[in-house]
Amino acid sequence: MSPLTKHNGMSPPTLQWVGSMDGHLALLDQTRLPAEVVQLVCRDVQSVWQAIRRLCVRGAPAIGIAAAYGVCLGVQTARDADLAAFQTRVDKICDYLATSRQTAVNLFWALDRMRAVAHQAAGCSAREWAARLLAEAQAIHQEDRQMCAEIGRHGADLLAELPAGAGILTHCNAGALATGGDGTALSILFELARRGRRPHVWVDETRPLLQGARLTTWELLQRGIEITLICDSMAAHVMRQGNVQAVVTGADRIAANGDVANKIGTYGVATLAKAHGIAFYVAAPTSTLDIALATGDQIPIEQRAAEEITHGFGRATAPAEVAVYNPAFDVTPAELIAGIVTEKGVVQPVTPATIAAWAARPPA
Amino acid sequence: MSPLTKHNGMSPPTLQWVGSMDGHLALLDQTRLPAEVVQLVCRDVQSVWQAIRRLCVRGAPAIGIAAAYGVCLGVQTARDADLAAFQTRVDKICDYLATSRQTAVNLFWALDRMRAVAHQAAGCSAREWAARLLAEAQAIHQEDRQMCAEIGRHGADLLAELPAGAGILTHCNAGALATGGDGTALSILFELARRGRRPHVWVDETRPLLQGARLTTWELLQRGIEITLICDSMAAHVMRQGNVQAVVTGADRIAANGDVANKIGTYGVATLAKAHGIAFYVAAPTSTLDIALATGDQIPIEQRAAEEITHGFGRATAPAEVAVYNPAFDVTPAELIAGIVTEKGVVQPVTPATIAAWAARPPA
Repeated sequence: MSPLTKHNGMSPPTLQWVGSMDGHLALLDQTRLPAEVVQLVCRDVQSVWQAIRRLCVRGAPAIGIAAAYGVCLGVQTARDADLAAFQTRVDKICDYLATSRQTAVNLFWALDRMRAVAHQAAGCSAREWAARLLAEAQAIHQEDRQMCAEIGRHGADLLAELPAGAGILTHCNAGALATGGDGTALSILFELARRGRRPHVWVDETRPLLQGARLTTWELLQRGIEITLICDSMAAHVMRQGNVQAVVTGADRIAANGDVANKIGTYGVATLAKAHGIAFYVAAPTSTLDIALATGDQIPIEQRAAEEITHGFGRATAPAEVAVYNPAFDVTPAELIAGIVTEKGVVQPVTPATIAAWAARPPA
Repeated sequence: MSPLTKHNGMSPPTLQWVGSMDGHLALLDQTRLPAEVVQLVCRDVQSVWQAIRRLCVRGAPAIGIAAAYGVCLGVQTARDADLAAFQTRVDKICDYLATSRQTAVNLFWALDRMRAVAHQAAGCSAREWAARLLAEAQAIHQEDRQMCAEIGRHGADLLAELPAGAGILTHCNAGALATGGDGTALSILFELARRGRRPHVWVDETRPLLQGARLTTWELLQRGIEITLICDSMAAHVMRQGNVQAVVTGADRIAANGDVANKIGTYGVATLAKAHGIAFYVAAPTSTLDIALATGDQIPIEQRAAEEITHGFGRATAPAEVAVYNPAFDVTPAELIAGIVTEKGVVQPVTPATIAAWAARPPA
């Protein structure tokens, strides 16, 4: 297993490639937050696979970036191979990393980019292609930072008509911890705050793994944004009290008709928002779009271990013999989504036609 | 503090008066379930107050019964007082116990019955009135058992048209652990099972205190009923999959217009049920009705400590400085409720007129 490095002082970034081609990937271990800020050092593909599976790194864009760096780690021992063997090695690494999680499409998208670089083989050495792979991973990372900033800008424009101090509810964590930059949904909130709009953020704790309670609160407090933490079951009550003016979440995969897979509970929040006349927005980069899937029904939903629910916090909270259903994601149908905030602009209304136009649109 | 008695063998009852007038109240300590089955022995009013406040005993009907027995404990040291002093003592005890929790009306209803007995003073001694108080507490307990059975019967009749094996979702715990008998909502499920209808029960874990995960699962497994435990945030997804044919919950207070206060999250479940065309039922005895309140907006909602959310399982799961909102209950408006199952029959539709008729109806 990978060693753990205790971090002192400022929070380390979500992901960080340390060194050159012989370097390693350092991940902020999100399973330890907020109690401990520690970096997880990954020096091989297996440790990246484990880090993704165990949710040390999570969030659709961040998973893609981590996997891309994972490919770079995997070829460190294959630089003297001939090109065909090198390409086979890259394919195998990509196939392996693709099994770490199944719902977020950014993982497959990033691995496809890495695979394509390896297969654009010309007369140069495997060592040179390894350098190009690292450059590609770093490009994916850098592009994601830029996409986050653009999403923040477009989203803040979209929510400009909300009164200052408006209540905005978010579910799970779609922040800096989920991306290479400032996040997707949270990037919008950060930009609103920068513009002096003082959003009040209602943070769903997000059972079973409490990404809202552990991660979103931690990020928002660091940025000085006013927040209130609630249990997922309280969102409806808070909406009924008139305290929520908009909902913004991230996305793990978006189908061609605009259906969105995201953290379990998102569909419930979207349904409750509709019932209360509150606009429900999704924020995601174009890499989250899976135009090959006609509808959300085709998105595979990862099922996770019962223990996440029955032993969530180091203690048994249910009888040992109980049957548990633990889907990690759900699908929100397009008709519940007021708009999708992307780095290219806002997709609104959300229909097969506007999704197709989004896919075809060049970067802004 | 009250001593703890480890229980061996069969599960002890939710509440049990042990002995005669000089006896004590033994409560199944629900904060320790399902890991440990221990009885909490209460020998004075303070320990009953604490047991109610700490949720060692919870559930609207059970709280009322516990408080009634608490009055009996409180007068054990006042039996040689004159009648006026005795009555003053009873009033003070009732005032004190009424401060233990604020939302469930059964607490005040039971205390009013005890107070009335003490004030029906004739020429007999305080000692004799103490005996009558114990008889009244035991009557409240016994009547509750009977009410549970009747609710089970009426509810199973109501749900008779559901196919065998139908999915029924419940929130929190409205079972034997919440009452003096077989429960309210769960009594219906037990009766359906007795009739061979094999309900499949979806159990919301019910954050923050996990009464669903800890208590409802424990009860249903003991009765051999098929269950699946889910996080509260998964209910919408399970409904969308077509796996829920009805929802049944308990109630803590019902206003004159049929609005129902119940465990936080109930309103969200009711809203989601409506959105999916699923009937949402409430099960409660007449003692839960507070005809003095015109609407649910007037029901006081207990706010509980932030630590229930941030340190729910012995470990910090959120940053220490985070602001938390932790209402213990919410209000479901009458228009979302398909029917209220009472010991007198089913109130359906739920309107001010049918609620008034329910209040006026003699016991079945």
